[in-house]
Amino acid sequence: MRDFLPEDVRRRDYVIGIITRVYQRYGFEPLETPAVENLATLVGKYGEEGSKLIFKILKRGEHEKTGEADLALRYDLTVPLARVMAQHQSKLPRMFRRYQIQPVWRADRPARGRFREFYQCDVDLLGSTSPVVEAELCTAVSDVLSELGFGDFVIRLNDRRVLTALLGAAGVDAAHHGPALVALDKLDKIGPDGVAGELTARGIASDASAALLSYFTVPVGSDLAVHSCDDELDRLGGHIRDEMGRSALENLRAIVRLASGTRAASRLRVDPSLARGLSYYTGAIMEVAVADLAGSLGGGGRYDNLIGIFSGQDIPACGFSLGLERLLVVMAERGMFPPTLVSSPADVMVAMFDASTARDALRLADQMRACGLRVLVYPDAEKLGKQMKYADVRGVPFVALLGDDEIQAGTVTVKDLAAQTQHTYEQAAAGAAILEALKQRG
Amino acid sequence: MRDFLPEDVRRRDYVIGIITRVYQRYGFEPLETPAVENLATLVGKYGEEGSKLIFKILKRGEHEKTGEADLALRYDLTVPLARVMAQHQSKLPRMFRRYQIQPVWRADRPARGRFREFYQCDVDLLGSTSPVVEAELCTAVSDVLSELGFGDFVIRLNDRRVLTALLGAAGVDAAHHGPALVALDKLDKIGPDGVAGELTARGIASDASAALLSYFTVPVGSDLAVHSCDDELDRLGGHIRDEMGRSALENLRAIVRLASGTRAASRLRVDPSLARGLSYYTGAIMEVAVADLAGSLGGGGRYDNLIGIFSGQDIPACGFSLGLERLLVVMAERGMFPPTLVSSPADVMVAMFDASTARDALRLADQMRACGLRVLVYPDAEKLGKQMKYADVRGVPFVALLGDDEIQAGTVTVKDLAAQTQHTYEQAAAGAAILEALKQRG
Repeated sequence: MRDFLPEDVRRRDYVIGIITRVYQRYGFEPLETPAVENLATLVGKYGEEGSKLIFKILKRGEHEKTGEADLALRYDLTVPLARVMAQHQSKLPRMFRRYQIQPVWRADRPARGRFREFYQCDVDLLGSTSPVVEAELCTAVSDVLSELGFGDFVIRLNDRRVLTALLGAAGVDAAHHGPALVALDKLDKIGPDGVAGELTARGIASDASAALLSYFTVPVGSDLAVHSCDDELDRLGGHIRDEMGRSALENLRAIVRLASGTRAASRLRVDPSLARGLSYYTGAIMEVAVADLAGSLGGGGRYDNLIGIFSGQDIPACGFSLGLERLLVVMAERGMFPPTLVSSPADVMVAMFDASTARDALRLADQMRACGLRVLVYPDAEKLGKQMKYADVRGVPFVALLGDDEIQAGTVTVKDLAAQTQHTYEQAAAGAAILEALKQRG
Repeated sequence: MRDFLPEDVRRRDYVIGIITRVYQRYGFEPLETPAVENLATLVGKYGEEGSKLIFKILKRGEHEKTGEADLALRYDLTVPLARVMAQHQSKLPRMFRRYQIQPVWRADRPARGRFREFYQCDVDLLGSTSPVVEAELCTAVSDVLSELGFGDFVIRLNDRRVLTALLGAAGVDAAHHGPALVALDKLDKIGPDGVAGELTARGIASDASAALLSYFTVPVGSDLAVHSCDDELDRLGGHIRDEMGRSALENLRAIVRLASGTRAASRLRVDPSLARGLSYYTGAIMEVAVADLAGSLGGGGRYDNLIGIFSGQDIPACGFSLGLERLLVVMAERGMFPPTLVSSPADVMVAMFDASTARDALRLADQMRACGLRVLVYPDAEKLGKQMKYADVRGVPFVALLGDDEIQAGTVTVKDLAAQTQHTYEQAAAGAAILEALKQRG
């Protein structure tokens, strides 16, 4: 778990601001749920491994003796969404488009770049099975990444049913589908030979393994090759005969076609090797890949059987989740934060001469704040050099000096710390002058 | 603990946005700390009653048997600030102005308007003992409330040392100061007779009780009478002889004078009956009172002995905390949210005709989003009447119709749901036209 100091918060708010604005532009609405859920709501929803990672909260009163827990920290944003759909049904539209950007907690061993408290940025559309939903999610995520300044990403696209069909066509029996998917998911990391070894180790016959690998081209997620989605779908169609597999291919074709008139068109890659870990996906799956980055910045897909678990109703759903911490790490490494991002506590510091001038210092600060400036009043009448240094070190560009002479004359002297120049203004005009100077330096 | 549905989130974000902008205008910087702290960090910091209200998290592994807890949920934002000051000392300025707006958790019995998860909006200035700090905090809080639209608030101002001096002057012995303050704190709720009764019940002699009550005028917090701070300070000076009490009065006089040139000047009221519960205050204390509202919207004061507990250094501090939930309740009751606050998911909905027009619908949506519009694409080709109703019920003002004829002609028909009118535009011009129409209706 980490503290976020001012510079961290500003960077996080910058990224969250862009994600929020883009999702709002797609008609998604904000939802927030409490950090603490009833333990019973979460238990059994994340598999055996997941259950171990849930932070449990001791029941009050006799708790310390019995060790009984009745509450737990939010583990993801999807199960709370399912609970909200059941609990607030009458207040929510039957087709609900929501985004949610909040922390989740996992009792994992902390590792580099992995934290026990981390933020998820989820966007989901509930209540429609149309491929328009998948297309809109892909274009929304594409807009987010473009506005953050990523130029080199692609969105890998596949369907769980296509994978099932390919496994069947290769002669992998149903019992081995799970292990085979785990192996295939590593194709872009360990290559075809590595996957072949893993398939053998997981008990898949060598002819089935060879047939399966023949269906996959070099993964496009990692080399970002220009690649025609339609050609890839045609090629896969040559291997898939069963009806569910063929209809899944047609659904992927529809998604690609729907997005083809948007700014996201060039970002889509049909990639049959994409598997994604979570077993709850029922249809299309997506994942964002960036050049030179192992792992993804986010992913999602269709999951039509999960949202109804609390309400007992079938509610189709499709969503996408971006990893805030990964976005921030990559953006920091690549120097992608705009130079205009605020990094100082204030635009101007009002220096403090002595107790007799302090009232005027606060009055001037009030005037300048009314102009919209961020104004820091140095509270102690320390040596002027020390005050100047404080402003300089903290990156405050201007210092306002208001001594007895200035107060007498109704003026203020404004020092530009970078240029080492100073100007004297009428007090009422100083705010506008500083604003103008800030605007000119951009 | 509560879910925040879209309308709730928008209102919360509106209020948090104003608080944030005002605090930034005063040079305060953002800090965020994790929801989970080490239990040892929190234990012993909130008194006996407080300790019972800390949510404790079970240790992993054998936890369910032993009931051992090593982590806990954040209980307030002040102790984490003290921890941060010790832990990140080298990265923080010696004079640190920070704001922090995050939830805290208390294992309290939930009651009306009281929640187990609630947000605190804290602003603190560490590293200075100057009364400029108190004056700046009062003006900042005054700016927040003014910008939120409160016209009827005052900021009550007192000093713990003034209270101590008044208790001493009345002849209340030191051992009874605590109980007497608890009784006095109720002056504006139960009146002088009620307080006299409480003082007697707490073992304070009747002559001391009578002397004490004679020092207090009718509390100004509740009747908002026009009231001169200087007159009140003079009056109190007539009762206080000891040096600490007199210097506290002079400090209050300095705070009032410092703020007298700002927009907050008319808001300050010296109110000797203000006690505030927390025992960690060491100097000035403040509290916001609003007409017709029992309790306060927030309060704060100087606490010079708390921030150093982890670092072992003396760090003077003064802060103010606003209660987000109370602000929201009062603003909702008074209808203070601006009518322009977004309440619909989108500015325009693109209706869906059939699968053959869907690609063009997404292309049009993409164009309109590039203009900055919030655009919802209805994903399913349901009956047009049903789609229209969805837009209408959800408050989406415009619906874009893109059938075969429009696609052929490169146009789009835009329906204004409120006015029941429609216009046909070139597709490329539709976004700008809708933006203009939205601007005109404000």
